Amino acid sequence: SVNPDLASERQTTSFSVEKLTALLDGGTEQTRIRRAVVETIESDPVFSRENQYFQTQNERYEAAVRKAVHLQKKMHEMGWTENGPEYKYIYRALSGDVAFLLHRVFMRSISVLGSDKQIAKWIPLATQHKLIGSYAQTELGHGTYLQGLETTAVFDTATQEFILNTPKISAMKWWPGDMGRSATHTVVFAQLYIHGKCYGIHPFIVQIRSLQDHSLCPGVIAGDIGPKMNFEHIDNGYLLLKNVRIPRENMLSKFCEVRPDGTYVRQGSQKINYFTMTTVRISLISDEVLTPLMKACTIAIRYSVVRRQSKLKPGEQEAKILDYQTQQEKLLPQLAAAYAFHFVNDYLQELFNRGYREIQRKNFDMLPELHALSSGFKAVITQHCTAGVEICLRACGGHGYSLLSGLPSLYTKILASCIYEGENTILLLQTARFLIKCFMAANAGQPVPPSVTYLAAVKHGKCPAKNKLDFLSPDIYTEAYQHVAVRLTSSTAAKLQDLIQSGVKKHDAWNQCTVQLVQAAKAHCHYMAVKNFAETVEKLETKAGIRKIMKHLCDLFALHGIFSNTGAFLHDGYTSAAQMDMVTASYLDLLAVVRKDAVPLVDAFDFTDKSLNSALGSYDGQVYQRLYEWAQKSPTNQMSPAYERYLKPLLHNTLSKL
Amino acid sequence: SVNPDLASERQTTSFSVEKLTALLDGGTEQTRIRRAVVETIESDPVFSRENQYFQTQNERYEAAVRKAVHLQKKMHEMGWTENGPEYKYIYRALSGDVAFLLHRVFMRSISVLGSDKQIAKWIPLATQHKLIGSYAQTELGHGTYLQGLETTAVFDTATQEFILNTPKISAMKWWPGDMGRSATHTVVFAQLYIHGKCYGIHPFIVQIRSLQDHSLCPGVIAGDIGPKMNFEHIDNGYLLLKNVRIPRENMLSKFCEVRPDGTYVRQGSQKINYFTMTTVRISLISDEVLTPLMKACTIAIRYSVVRRQSKLKPGEQEAKILDYQTQQEKLLPQLAAAYAFHFVNDYLQELFNRGYREIQRKNFDMLPELHALSSGFKAVITQHCTAGVEICLRACGGHGYSLLSGLPSLYTKILASCIYEGENTILLLQTARFLIKCFMAANAGQPVPPSVTYLAAVKHGKCPAKNKLDFLSPDIYTEAYQHVAVRLTSSTAAKLQDLIQSGVKKHDAWNQCTVQLVQAAKAHCHYMAVKNFAETVEKLETKAGIRKIMKHLCDLFALHGIFSNTGAFLHDGYTSAAQMDMVTASYLDLLAVVRKDAVPLVDAFDFTDKSLNSALGSYDGQVYQRLYEWAQKSPTNQMSPAYERYLKPLLHNTLSKL
Repeated sequence: SVNPDLASERQTTSFSVEKLTALLDGGTEQTRIRRAVVETIESDPVFSRENQYFQTQNERYEAAVRKAVHLQKKMHEMGWTENGPEYKYIYRALSGDVAFLLHRVFMRSISVLGSDKQIAKWIPLATQHKLIGSYAQTELGHGTYLQGLETTAVFDTATQEFILNTPKISAMKWWPGDMGRSATHTVVFAQLYIHGKCYGIHPFIVQIRSLQDHSLCPGVIAGDIGPKMNFEHIDNGYLLLKNVRIPRENMLSKFCEVRPDGTYVRQGSQKINYFTMTTVRISLISDEVLTPLMKACTIAIRYSVVRRQSKLKPGEQEAKILDYQTQQEKLLPQLAAAYAFHFVNDYLQELFNRGYREIQRKNFDMLPELHALSSGFKAVITQHCTAGVEICLRACGGHGYSLLSGLPSLYTKILASCIYEGENTILLLQTARFLIKCFMAANAGQPVPPSVTYLAAVKHGKCPAKNKLDFLSPDIYTEAYQHVAVRLTSSTAAKLQDLIQSGVKKHDAWNQCTVQLVQAAKAHCHYMAVKNFAETVEKLETKAGIRKIMKHLCDLFALHGIFSNTGAFLHDGYTSAAQMDMVTASYLDLLAVVRKDAVPLVDAFDFTDKSLNSALGSYDGQVYQRLYEWAQKSPTNQMSPAYERYLKPLLHNTLSKL
Repeated sequence: SVNPDLASERQTTSFSVEKLTALLDGGTEQTRIRRAVVETIESDPVFSRENQYFQTQNERYEAAVRKAVHLQKKMHEMGWTENGPEYKYIYRALSGDVAFLLHRVFMRSISVLGSDKQIAKWIPLATQHKLIGSYAQTELGHGTYLQGLETTAVFDTATQEFILNTPKISAMKWWPGDMGRSATHTVVFAQLYIHGKCYGIHPFIVQIRSLQDHSLCPGVIAGDIGPKMNFEHIDNGYLLLKNVRIPRENMLSKFCEVRPDGTYVRQGSQKINYFTMTTVRISLISDEVLTPLMKACTIAIRYSVVRRQSKLKPGEQEAKILDYQTQQEKLLPQLAAAYAFHFVNDYLQELFNRGYREIQRKNFDMLPELHALSSGFKAVITQHCTAGVEICLRACGGHGYSLLSGLPSLYTKILASCIYEGENTILLLQTARFLIKCFMAANAGQPVPPSVTYLAAVKHGKCPAKNKLDFLSPDIYTEAYQHVAVRLTSSTAAKLQDLIQSGVKKHDAWNQCTVQLVQAAKAHCHYMAVKNFAETVEKLETKAGIRKIMKHLCDLFALHGIFSNTGAFLHDGYTSAAQMDMVTASYLDLLAVVRKDAVPLVDAFDFTDKSLNSALGSYDGQVYQRLYEWAQKSPTNQMSPAYERYLKPLLHNTLSKL
């Protein structure tokens, strides 16, 4: 039975929840396929995540391996393939709690970086799991800056082998997933040396464990890097190589080859490599970043209509905490952001597909824009969603802090997305570099990519809004965001030029502007997100109330951004103080409007109880019952040796009848 | 040997680190005592925290109990007493990783709420550990709003007993520390009923476990609430009571008594109760909130001068990451905040001591101000420091995400401080209520407490700064903060009155202003923190470079606050856009200045390596060596059954020589 406080929230829904779910999925057929995958996975006890919050790191790892092996069978049984329509829903249905994800990266890197011959040899072996692959790039002392990697691969013409070495401790490979305990092979990135000359970083296939008994190969020291904030199920590993010899054929050689005599040959364009990074950054947004925020919103909003605390009106019963303006102000902007970024993701996917088609025609023109947008949005979305999950956790008070709420594990996991696949600050600076370049070009009358043409059109006008309702006009707020993005880019470009003209060296000048460059990059992405949301709403069907509620969320997303960054909009007087008061009024009004549909808006995300794995967020809202029943199963309710060892002697030491 | 990149940071220190440590401790004698306690605790293997990151929740609990029992012996052995000068350093030296903390709360509640007779009976028993106490207030469905608690205590005149019951699941006690597995007794807060009439919430001493064999007493269901985001060492518990009978004498009766015939007698003032909450909120700031931020700064800053990444200047070696402006902008404001809040804590302690003296003279006049300041600062400091620890964690990239960095556990623990002892939003609204009341009073010419007299002096001037150096003048920035605090308070007071005059009911009007009321309360506390820091610097001795470096930190704290909240300062034109650009320039300049002394400034916190328990933060900066050695000891490097069970069959299934 559904908690009546939750049931009542579903009675006056202004829109069709089912239609909104289909919109999010990209069509009713997609919804059907997704639900079928979820149903299959969740009805199989091997994939259960119920005990996850009680398990040690070792138990999590073992379960993840078991699931990965079982998944192979399951896919075969269900007729699911890597190219089928079900595939993209499997990982999500497993909530990522499965091993061998790096095995796929191992395969992809061979497909992208390997010669046809290498692909023909290794891909079938990997597909049939005759080996388990990993991908060893990051080192203990080196991350984003690939040129700084220290592992060496010296070509020995006499034996036609590469000799791999870890010259010092900071050169040890560190972090590669599946490498700590599982992998038999890995792709190692190392500085290539031929006849004493360094040719830079290249990828090599290295066997690290025996296929017979899984023991480490000679010269290989490898293991698990130990406990992390999350990802207990992944055996992130370390790898130390001492004169490990591999055949010449094991250097991935689509772009570069070492001939038997030691001649180094470069072939083809490596531009496609940047495209690979772009692919990864865009692909992680949906499952790794948006899904956790959507889950957190679902949990926190359902809980906030079940939890009652204090009285809003004297004499009445205690109020649902979602009826407090402060609680609305915490949660509803996160909900709006989840939708906003979902549509940004659609936009990026489309841009990416277009880029991919162009690249296949050997046209690389879109690469800089794609790189800048995927970098900037990866940073902005991961940052925003991580903060959003934390807000949801804190908004649930003490119960949010219990692992059984599901919120701590969502938070500790999404946090990593701010760091991996490019640390966010570095990514934002790459976007900023693109912006500055395009700003300069645009102002010199040169053509620039479509997403940044607005930089040329610097207007020194004022915001035309006359009352608070004007701020519900997408033109008004989109223009305001655009103005801020242009102002921050142009003022930072000016500062940069001033510094250089005053004699500061170019790299010093850049460093002295980086705090402001980051602001400009964020403003650009924020503007794009608002604009994209507004344009998406414009195109929606007006039936079933979908467009109306999406318009409210778009307004809320936009006004929350202004309300939270008033200085950026007030700075040059584009927005006046009186107008900012209108923004605040409209924003606070909107909270009360969106609050009415808050539960249906999270219901539309269509998470099952098993996928939420939360005592607070279940569809029926039976929060207290669930917390109590679940807590009783905790291993901490087993007998502890602490009583016999410490408590009994303490108490009996001076035992007396009280 | 110290990593040369770290050693070089200590060579040009502009001040005496030892003198700054003494300043932070409150004198060289305090430093001496603290170090002696730390030395004693850390040299005893029972208190070691080295394996903490590898332990399960059960192991953490057992270790915490062992430490608590051992601590009794140790104190006896060392001659340390609860009233001695060493006492306050013990908990800090243990990093809070010890059981029976609620036993002390149990004792304190009896001392404060019990009659002389009750104190005489229970305190000696507790002191000698003839029982283990806990404190059961929070319920599954009820937190801050005490009147909402549902546990009942019905007086039975026939047997002269109270009958305690948990009428429904939401009434179950939930969260009390030490109650899940250890406690034999607890103070239960319940609604008192006599002859069918409810007299509200009262405290009762209830035995929950046998002193003979630790089994649960009849009618008692209790256990551990399961895994949390941190505090694995604490057995937070649940408690369900079914017709549990306790003697009439077990109701704590300093303020209220139930006579044998059921007559209810209220005696004395309960105002002192508010003072108890104030005491707790102030006392947690130092150890639970400031120490974690100081540790996080120490770890992140030391790591940031050891870690090198990319090149700042072409042709040079990779740069220390602390040399990047963006990294400085992340870490140095947190360092400044740690100092700022340390001095706020001194201020609150002094105010508290003054208040305590007044209260002993039965003068309760200071209570409202003390309550408002302790609530507001508890919220602002916990919020700010939690965000600061998260920034430090993320600023260390991947290694910050490893538990071995120490940062994840600092973060997951400090996060709880935003929730316990009063959820922050609720506390800020209490401060806001005080501000609005005082603002009204001040403007009606009535006297108000000293900390808020400024609210009467609304000035409509402009910021007089003429160049960026003017913003290094404490008068200039303190005045700006004051202006913002007054503006936010007065504008929200005006909105509140407008709403009420337009016919909105008082409680609805309040709810509609809460988002802005929270802003006003934060602005008030921020202003007080800046003002207090500036006044503290003013009084410092100019010798040994202390005053100069503290002045830099004060400036940095103040300007970072303006830079991060420009809208608040720009809104009514008090600060112009040109002045805001000066703030930005001064702020960014300061980062480069403070960066030079960053390592000595964290060295002054004087944390030992053992207390940091971090592979990244040790005094010698041997980061990579430490990570590697520590990771090898992880239980995840033991043989896993996953190989025999899953990997071997998978690989051997299709085994072939590659």
